Amino acid sequence: MAENWRFMNSAGAKIKIAVVGASGYSGQELLRLLIMHPSVEIVAVTSRAEAGKSLETVFPRFRGAEAIRDVEFIEPDIDRIVESGAEAAFLALPHGVAYEFAGPLLEKGLRVIDLSADFRLNDLEVYEEFYGEHSSPELLSEAVYGLPEIRRDEIRTARLVASPGCYPTSILLPLIPLLKAGVLKSETIAISSLSGTSGAGKSSSPAFLFCEVNESLRAYNAPKHRHLSEIEQELSIAAGSPVCVSFVPHLMPINQGIATTIFADLADTGLTDEAIAANYEKAYGDSPFVRVLGPGNFPDTKNVARTNFVDIGWVIDGRTDRLILCSAEDNLGKGASSQAIQSFNLMFGLPETVGLMNY
Amino acid sequence: MAENWRFMNSAGAKIKIAVVGASGYSGQELLRLLIMHPSVEIVAVTSRAEAGKSLETVFPRFRGAEAIRDVEFIEPDIDRIVESGAEAAFLALPHGVAYEFAGPLLEKGLRVIDLSADFRLNDLEVYEEFYGEHSSPELLSEAVYGLPEIRRDEIRTARLVASPGCYPTSILLPLIPLLKAGVLKSETIAISSLSGTSGAGKSSSPAFLFCEVNESLRAYNAPKHRHLSEIEQELSIAAGSPVCVSFVPHLMPINQGIATTIFADLADTGLTDEAIAANYEKAYGDSPFVRVLGPGNFPDTKNVARTNFVDIGWVIDGRTDRLILCSAEDNLGKGASSQAIQSFNLMFGLPETVGLMNY
Amino acid sequence: MAENWRFMNSAGAKIKIAVVGASGYSGQELLRLLIMHPSVEIVAVTSRAEAGKSLETVFPRFRGAEAIRDVEFIEPDIDRIVESGAEAAFLALPHGVAYEFAGPLLEKGLRVIDLSADFRLNDLEVYEEFYGEHSSPELLSEAVYGLPEIRRDEIRTARLVASPGCYPTSILLPLIPLLKAGVLKSETIAISSLSGTSGAGKSSSPAFLFCEVNESLRAYNAPKHRHLSEIEQELSIAAGSPVCVSFVPHLMPINQGIATTIFADLADTGLTDEAIAANYEKAYGDSPFVRVLGPGNFPDTKNVARTNFVDIGWVIDGRTDRLILCSAEDNLGKGASSQAIQSFNLMFGLPETVGLMNY
Amino acid sequence: MAENWRFMNSAGAKIKIAVVGASGYSGQELLRLLIMHPSVEIVAVTSRAEAGKSLETVFPRFRGAEAIRDVEFIEPDIDRIVESGAEAAFLALPHGVAYEFAGPLLEKGLRVIDLSADFRLNDLEVYEEFYGEHSSPELLSEAVYGLPEIRRDEIRTARLVASPGCYPTSILLPLIPLLKAGVLKSETIAISSLSGTSGAGKSSSPAFLFCEVNESLRAYNAPKHRHLSEIEQELSIAAGSPVCVSFVPHLMPINQGIATTIFADLADTGLTDEAIAANYEKAYGDSPFVRVLGPGNFPDTKNVARTNFVDIGWVIDGRTDRLILCSAEDNLGKGASSQAIQSFNLMFGLPETVGLMNY
Repeated sequence: MAENWRFMNSAGAKIKIAVVGASGYSGQELLRLLIMHPSVEIVAVTSRAEAGKSLETVFPRFRGAEAIRDVEFIEPDIDRIVESGAEAAFLALPHGVAYEFAGPLLEKGLRVIDLSADFRLNDLEVYEEFYGEHSSPELLSEAVYGLPEIRRDEIRTARLVASPGCYPTSILLPLIPLLKAGVLKSETIAISSLSGTSGAGKSSSPAFLFCEVNESLRAYNAPKHRHLSEIEQELSIAAGSPVCVSFVPHLMPINQGIATTIFADLADTGLTDEAIAANYEKAYGDSPFVRVLGPGNFPDTKNVARTNFVDIGWVIDGRTDRLILCSAEDNLGKGASSQAIQSFNLMFGLPETVGLMNY
Repeated sequence: MAENWRFMNSAGAKIKIAVVGASGYSGQELLRLLIMHPSVEIVAVTSRAEAGKSLETVFPRFRGAEAIRDVEFIEPDIDRIVESGAEAAFLALPHGVAYEFAGPLLEKGLRVIDLSADFRLNDLEVYEEFYGEHSSPELLSEAVYGLPEIRRDEIRTARLVASPGCYPTSILLPLIPLLKAGVLKSETIAISSLSGTSGAGKSSSPAFLFCEVNESLRAYNAPKHRHLSEIEQELSIAAGSPVCVSFVPHLMPINQGIATTIFADLADTGLTDEAIAANYEKAYGDSPFVRVLGPGNFPDTKNVARTNFVDIGWVIDGRTDRLILCSAEDNLGKGASSQAIQSFNLMFGLPETVGLMNY
Repeated sequence: MAENWRFMNSAGAKIKIAVVGASGYSGQELLRLLIMHPSVEIVAVTSRAEAGKSLETVFPRFRGAEAIRDVEFIEPDIDRIVESGAEAAFLALPHGVAYEFAGPLLEKGLRVIDLSADFRLNDLEVYEEFYGEHSSPELLSEAVYGLPEIRRDEIRTARLVASPGCYPTSILLPLIPLLKAGVLKSETIAISSLSGTSGAGKSSSPAFLFCEVNESLRAYNAPKHRHLSEIEQELSIAAGSPVCVSFVPHLMPINQGIATTIFADLADTGLTDEAIAANYEKAYGDSPFVRVLGPGNFPDTKNVARTNFVDIGWVIDGRTDRLILCSAEDNLGKGASSQAIQSFNLMFGLPETVGLMNY
Repeated sequence: MAENWRFMNSAGAKIKIAVVGASGYSGQELLRLLIMHPSVEIVAVTSRAEAGKSLETVFPRFRGAEAIRDVEFIEPDIDRIVESGAEAAFLALPHGVAYEFAGPLLEKGLRVIDLSADFRLNDLEVYEEFYGEHSSPELLSEAVYGLPEIRRDEIRTARLVASPGCYPTSILLPLIPLLKAGVLKSETIAISSLSGTSGAGKSSSPAFLFCEVNESLRAYNAPKHRHLSEIEQELSIAAGSPVCVSFVPHLMPINQGIATTIFADLADTGLTDEAIAANYEKAYGDSPFVRVLGPGNFPDTKNVARTNFVDIGWVIDGRTDRLILCSAEDNLGKGASSQAIQSFNLMFGLPETVGLMNY
């Protein structure tokens, strides 16, 4: 393996990383992947609730894993994170908390991959409309929206990556190439998405108890789910003009997975499957994690669970001159943690796929 | 209970009924409800596959039930059904088989409630486009589309009721009052529906094995699912002009339930929640099985499982001038078997709700 | 229906009942069944957490139900319960809380069916060992352990019924007739039980979140689960001498259901299936809710979910001279709420099965 | 990585392998792991049903995987397998079919890891009692029962490894060290096991449809499940005298996982947790895939799903002088496919853990 050097940092060592806020589902999935990542050394893992406990105790699944044998949860303290020698920090914190850590860690020279919503929006006003106050608005313009398939080069050099939300990833990847190509009427986009329950987090609300979710399917937070803000921001960039969409999220009785179905009117009724395929080939031909299934093939969440893949299929509805797009991803994977690692790989000059080609 | 007489037939006895094709999921749910129905005597139950077996053997859930103690499956033979003395027959057969039974049973004086698609379409050509040849096209015009909330009076006097499909029921009940009122642009309707797996029937295809459905969510049969034919027929009647919609069905890992989410542009951007509520009140104020949850309340399939209710909620998406409608029903209940019994109750002068007010 | 009078109280009216502590899963199942019970009027429903809310708001499944149209949750206050005119009270409270209500309600002349563990044990010392202090030990001797198949006559005249736990019911009903008959070596009994997650209650512990229970199976609380105390008490009574058993409960990813598998050495290796069947016939021939499936037939929780049935099967393991017993029930049904109503029916001279013959 | 050479065969190349009978769940899991295995080249994959199709078509989850890019299913033909250059063959075939392939492939110089039951039993009579006729009884004595933790050295040099069944693995690993140590009364062992539904295979029996398994828990095939034969063979070897046990398998609504609970009387009532732990440490201290959780810690199937781990916990039931053992594994992992790869690693001088340290 002559290319082994590429898996290490410039000093030939593994890259030291911290996971800040690791006790939730995104944090757990991050740890799971980082434990198996060949170029990473986990030097700090924080959780206010679990500080002082070993990782094995909190996550029995990881019992015995070499990479965390001596790691225990510490308090989410900037100094302690810095002292660990971490070169990069993943923030798996709630929005409104992440921004308290990003600035100070950047100042100390760490590079930061934030999984929260805190740095995804370019426009402070939109942030405030959807999320409330922001403590570090000056970083909004520096942060790179971490969709590697769309912003690969910017991510490579970024100090601060705002890793996208789960719903947005499943919506943006199918839509962006087609909006760029102008083949859809962007004002007619309507989106129905379904998320696995891990998307609700490990909060102990009765609404997410097994008996409340099992044998249940329900919409929620329509028509103005918070993720709408970044969805429309990125769609507007792709379309070159403001895009406003309808978006209905649903909760489904699955651990991990997002299934998105998108309706949009065709700009030109003569659009062919070949033209759509060509647009995707152009956009994602070199992107190993986007799997374009082709016309008439509908993706299934079970085929992407615990992976970094997003699968995309479509069908042209000739009876209504509408395009129907379907995508599937893992909300904790491509929708959160593995996508964050994909950006990390790019930021540190590693092959984009290292640690992520899981099936 | 002075009104007890209403629970019986004109001779003061229970009404004798046959269930033809009872070994599938709709048949099982029909039997479950008929076993507990106070005005019904089950006199014949047919299944080619299970003929000769007792009902208890095939359905251990019903073990010990008085109403089927001496009932065993017989071959689906017209003469034997007639000899049983049945006054009414429920046909829980596949499309293309039901029509072989409907005509002969009607001739013998039985009234027929057909749960298949065979008599739902008014137009033979549309039937042939979606389903193929029809053996009894002359009955298409006589059959009443059995949506009691829309055609209560016609059902009362019908000899042959074509009970609606599961997806159509969940789509038609929310849309019909609003199309009648003209408040939606009917050409913009896009529908995403999810069905519990019992909707796929008890066929032993590997695609519906536990491990293939559990932790899975996938679209299928878009853009031209067979149910589209009756959906558009009934929407067009309500709108007074042809309506063509986009419809994407999905399979979800739930036993019983349909969740439908509908997008449609507002005809007039000034439409209020009050106006929508008023339309529903007018349409369904006297319909005990339609529960209008009001604006911002999204129905949950778990609240209607094993009932005859359909729950409807909505939200006006002011950002896109679109209405988002959500409905939930049980695909085997209001979407099939309990709705068929609702029609049966009407046909035999029973209270519409008898045997169906289950929670 | 000449026997209609039997459905009412002595004054010919429906029996007024209160449900105290109705916001959990047992309370919800009680309400579901009582709403459909023909001889009952629900006059008071209490919940500290939900006081002031309508039942429909808390339980959208019951929306529109006539029986609770004007009922709202009140504080769990003795006076208010008494003022409601309730003749009987169901206590669906945690152990250690129920005993605060039982005595005062009995004093006011109500009859009480307690679903908690507070009055199930005859021996105060055992109660204190398993549960801690008791505020009303004087009632322990009066309370009747409410297993109708075993204590039908005592229940009829009881003022205070201690309705059995979910695990105990699934264990006692298969074992008691065989211990009475002396066909098992009682010191060799080992029991593995699995409970649906509703058994854990509606508490919002992270351990019972959907993602923690789905795709998970785990034992817990062995070897000294609290239910062991009543299991051994009742087995000892049946055997006529002290019985001590091994018991391992497990949590399974199902909403409702208990599956129990019991191993016990045969007292006499010549024991036949016919002899076992005869013992069950003698014990349960007149008990409509015990369904004896016979040798080689293993019960399935799905056949008893949402019913008051317990299904029992067995097989003699001739290779080890051991009997293997399997039972299935609904932990919220025969294991809690419907069994409590069965006792209620007996206490008020109603047919034992009224409101409970659900399939 | 100086030890990289160990990942290759003697010629320094990847080891060429064939998977015979790859369309079922074990085959799929084998392929999933082999695709990611760094020392393996997949050169032949057979399936009578899928011959001619690409692996991607049959298993959309593997879409795009480099390792199978040019691989398509071929007929299960000895000559074609040999022509592929395979050095080893995994047989993921039903019992009674595998033995048709093992002999001929061994003759051609391949080494064989058989996942079926065909070579697990030493005694032809026992095979015939449990499975029927055998075509290659002469291989029974050569085959090594492939439990690496127990027979590591024999496996290294074996030509034919009979990889253990899923239930047996979950039962043998907890019991063998304790039987060897003589701390249990071997005649009192009673076992209740639960298997995820993938254990039933991808056969399209209605019994394993989603709606039949979901919300269901049932015992089956007691008291003489076929796996009993190998369980008792291996327990007897460990105990040094014939062991006969009671075994009740159950089907549970989980994709992958086995949970086993074992009861056994203590040989000496003074047995301590420390003594048990010491026995396990002695037996498995060098076995990375056995995770001993210690007393009072009950394993959870979700922590071992998709891994090669078996987790073991226990509790001494002092009230009955019985030991309660609990284990959890993945029926497709340590119970089948990953365990087969563990043997493969040993047979080819690779580190035992390569390709298997997944979390």
